[in-house]
Amino acid sequence: MIAGGGVIGTAIAWRAALVGLAVTLVDPDDDADKASLVAAGMLGPVSESVFGERDLLNLNLLAISRFPGFNAELEQAAGQQTGLRTEGTLAVAYDGGDMAALNRLTAFRRSIGLQARELDGRRCRELEPFLAPGTRGGVLATGDLSVDNRRYLAALREAARKAGVATLTGAVTAVRQGAGHVRVTVSGADAELSAPQAVVAAGWAAGKIDGVPETIRKALRPVKGQILRLRHPRGMPPILTHTVRATVGGRDVYLVPRADGEVVVGATQEERGDTTATAGAVHDLLRDAMTALPAISELTFAEVSVGLRPGTQDNGPIVGLAAGLIIAAGHFRNGILLSAATADAVTELLSGREPSAQWLPFAPGRLG
Amino acid sequence: MIAGGGVIGTAIAWRAALVGLAVTLVDPDDDADKASLVAAGMLGPVSESVFGERDLLNLNLLAISRFPGFNAELEQAAGQQTGLRTEGTLAVAYDGGDMAALNRLTAFRRSIGLQARELDGRRCRELEPFLAPGTRGGVLATGDLSVDNRRYLAALREAARKAGVATLTGAVTAVRQGAGHVRVTVSGADAELSAPQAVVAAGWAAGKIDGVPETIRKALRPVKGQILRLRHPRGMPPILTHTVRATVGGRDVYLVPRADGEVVVGATQEERGDTTATAGAVHDLLRDAMTALPAISELTFAEVSVGLRPGTQDNGPIVGLAAGLIIAAGHFRNGILLSAATADAVTELLSGREPSAQWLPFAPGRLG
Repeated sequence: MIAGGGVIGTAIAWRAALVGLAVTLVDPDDDADKASLVAAGMLGPVSESVFGERDLLNLNLLAISRFPGFNAELEQAAGQQTGLRTEGTLAVAYDGGDMAALNRLTAFRRSIGLQARELDGRRCRELEPFLAPGTRGGVLATGDLSVDNRRYLAALREAARKAGVATLTGAVTAVRQGAGHVRVTVSGADAELSAPQAVVAAGWAAGKIDGVPETIRKALRPVKGQILRLRHPRGMPPILTHTVRATVGGRDVYLVPRADGEVVVGATQEERGDTTATAGAVHDLLRDAMTALPAISELTFAEVSVGLRPGTQDNGPIVGLAAGLIIAAGHFRNGILLSAATADAVTELLSGREPSAQWLPFAPGRLG
Repeated sequence: MIAGGGVIGTAIAWRAALVGLAVTLVDPDDDADKASLVAAGMLGPVSESVFGERDLLNLNLLAISRFPGFNAELEQAAGQQTGLRTEGTLAVAYDGGDMAALNRLTAFRRSIGLQARELDGRRCRELEPFLAPGTRGGVLATGDLSVDNRRYLAALREAARKAGVATLTGAVTAVRQGAGHVRVTVSGADAELSAPQAVVAAGWAAGKIDGVPETIRKALRPVKGQILRLRHPRGMPPILTHTVRATVGGRDVYLVPRADGEVVVGATQEERGDTTATAGAVHDLLRDAMTALPAISELTFAEVSVGLRPGTQDNGPIVGLAAGLIIAAGHFRNGILLSAATADAVTELLSGREPSAQWLPFAPGRLG
């Protein structure tokens, strides 16, 4: 039994079914409540937030090296595309301070063997002609990827279905350890399940499940993110090829283009647990995006959406055994990136084996 | 037969049925295509645009004096509310230039007998405590009204239905004068109607109907408007009581509060005929609204919508007889305000009588 049908739970369900396990995926089936559907789908192992966090960086490097192979298998199994893009990320800066920060990150990327190409403003605008004239310079990270998170989740669902995963609509409210089995209470489904093993992959809501150890419940918190989806009006040629990250007045904004003309603009990061899309967030995201790429103003405003990222005490995920359960939660801003590697790790755990060493620092036992 | 089911056509249909006429209302039933549903519902006889246009002002004064009685009858007939508000409009200014323009408008309002109270910045913020601290002063127009345009159209539809108006889904593509009747071609409905009289109330799309005189067709053009709908999150007390108009950096923005917690922010005015909601318009409207009322940032972003106002050569509506047809189109920014008075005028015309004298300058014959 797997509690949670976001990218983490669904990826686990698919891979576990592939190795021959009988899998039931329990999910409230409320798409409004899924961080996986709100994400932008940027896949980069290095960002400001992992600068210096060596364990998380190692995990991210494992994850991004695994992603393309996993994704190719997924597209094959599901018979549908996930919109993987490989052009890389162009980080741009507008003033000396931003440029210095970017250069520090570039030096760090190189020190760990990642590719990064420094570009002056003119060269940035050759790569992305719609960048603002004031762009001072940038760095192209050619190893970064992006995926259409919604197509990715749809493909995972289809692959899981084809692999024989059963689904049950409802929210897991309690897991209780018995002799050789776990009893699972599902609200909404008016049912109790008994399963040999239980995987808790319910994002920040894992903290609300009775029976999950208190240290884990306390470590998880929702971190609100607001994000925009824009589209090219019919007939307008693409204004963006690479993922662009810009620091505008100290705030980070990213623009992620899709092959189908969608451009995702993200994201706020707010220490609160409501899902209200606010006028202020819409304004600030558009202002910063238009500062980086003025032509954004001509795109169609399609959607603002709100997700609750599963944040943890130390910003690292929680993956491993705890009190007879398997936990796979707390992926914070890296859920899509880590989904393939998490599915591998949990499949190992379900088969009684150890996951890769990069996961050791993220075992539930570290919390407390 | 009435072509067009916005507020103009539906108001006419209701009133014509009340005086005993058999009425068929033909409308494409495509709500995405209705300026009536995009409007904010501000009802004020005087704005910058009618300053000096005496004929239009006289018409607006007739219209606003008629509106409350018409609306009361409508609510009674439909058995539902339209959200009429009577607190008035507070126009605010931020610098000396805006203040001087406001004072000129105030003097004009008084010269025609309308109420207007000048307020200093402190007094403005007593009336509306969430106005920006930089508010320099304002003018309260106590005679202005506002109505929830969507509830208003819904009430008109219900009243028309109860009065026996028949509806036909489709777009009128041609009207042809016969002996004592008009033949009406309806696309989508695969039908031709024959009616003793035809009223063309299809907004800017009246210009696309074959058989409408060329002078009228040429006079009409779509004027794109983009508008936002925000809402108070649950538990947040109202941040606005009056309609607020603000001039921010030379641009006008208005904020219209509803009793149910909605706040409408409008509007762009663009000389184009597409219905794409753009990122740039959303940004600019939010920026200007937040400059006037910073707490707007905390409201829920509910919707951006786009309408095509029926603009005319001289910004005045086109109401009267032309080539055997009755025209009621081209209401530009004043459709809701003028709807009651237009319904009166057209009911008179349908009964073979003259409408009020204020309509004379707006007869189709003036065009050419």
